[in-house]
Amino acid sequence: MESLKKRILAEGQAIDADILKVDGFINHQVDPVLMTEAGKEFANFFADKGVTKVVTIESSGIAPAMMTAAALNVPMVILKKQPSKKLNPKLYQTEISSFTKEISYELTMSQEFIGENDHVLIIDDFLANGEAATGAIRLLRFAHATIAGVGVLIEKSFQPGRKKLEEQGIEVCSLVRIAKMETNHIELMD
Amino acid sequence: MESLKKRILAEGQAIDADILKVDGFINHQVDPVLMTEAGKEFANFFADKGVTKVVTIESSGIAPAMMTAAALNVPMVILKKQPSKKLNPKLYQTEISSFTKEISYELTMSQEFIGENDHVLIIDDFLANGEAATGAIRLLRFAHATIAGVGVLIEKSFQPGRKKLEEQGIEVCSLVRIAKMETNHIELMD
Repeated sequence: MESLKKRILAEGQAIDADILKVDGFINHQVDPVLMTEAGKEFANFFADKGVTKVVTIESSGIAPAMMTAAALNVPMVILKKQPSKKLNPKLYQTEISSFTKEISYELTMSQEFIGENDHVLIIDDFLANGEAATGAIRLLRFAHATIAGVGVLIEKSFQPGRKKLEEQGIEVCSLVRIAKMETNHIELMD
Repeated sequence: MESLKKRILAEGQAIDADILKVDGFINHQVDPVLMTEAGKEFANFFADKGVTKVVTIESSGIAPAMMTAAALNVPMVILKKQPSKKLNPKLYQTEISSFTKEISYELTMSQEFIGENDHVLIIDDFLANGEAATGAIRLLRFAHATIAGVGVLIEKSFQPGRKKLEEQGIEVCSLVRIAKMETNHIELMD
């Protein structure tokens, strides 16, 4: 996606070789025009997959996932990072370790909203080591759902996330792929 | 908003006199059609306020806020519930106590994204006791921003949130107002 590439090069900030800060348009302040376009891109890419639900992980994935769900006209399901006392007690849960945030958390999904007939498109902001996506896939497999694919705004192609997903036969659509980063330097693929 | 009223009466679940579960279309699974309509309603209601930013609190407010930001064509800023190590160190912070979730947390906003020239519309899923909204207003006032108003999908009108906001001169737009709840019973206003 050209507009996202330009934005990352203009406003993204490579803190070091691993951490890309994009909180001016994705993670803290969010550009609705960019997100609308991203949602349409994902909807087009996975148009023939019979997607019935878009799934994302709170909270940075919600904006692009909402726009993807709107473009596909299917519900979005938000995987929660901790069990809420107020939710349905029938939950699927799995533990995730986040490299970027150096924490572990329980990823949680109510059994009510995903079933064996669902074809699920997973949308997130970043794909790096693939912990969040593989965790989401574990949960969705507990529910016997079909994984239609994974769409991310930004892939750090120098980290193994895409490889892990493709080895499981999962199709990945990354709107921008980053080949390499150093402090204050971002190199895109292609 | 008629469609939201109907949905709440059909699918909302009053757990007790205080807790309304709407996780089939707002909080866990999210209906993009409903959110698009809600976004347009808020955009219309606050059309003459010169809104420059939509602000919300992660994570249940993000979906309606994203659609409101898209309808108004202004950026959305997500207030974070804890400081992230990767964010700008120049943060505004304030402590919030959540009655519903029985927890306290730090609400956090980067100084980079809201300034004294901003007219901010706060969007959230629920207005009950008003802790989250008044916390957001505190943060926005640290930044000397103007509060354009508060828009919520569902107001529990039997709780003091609206009164607290109106006493500060803040205009509130609630798409549905709930007069009273008991276990498995919801009474709307009007």
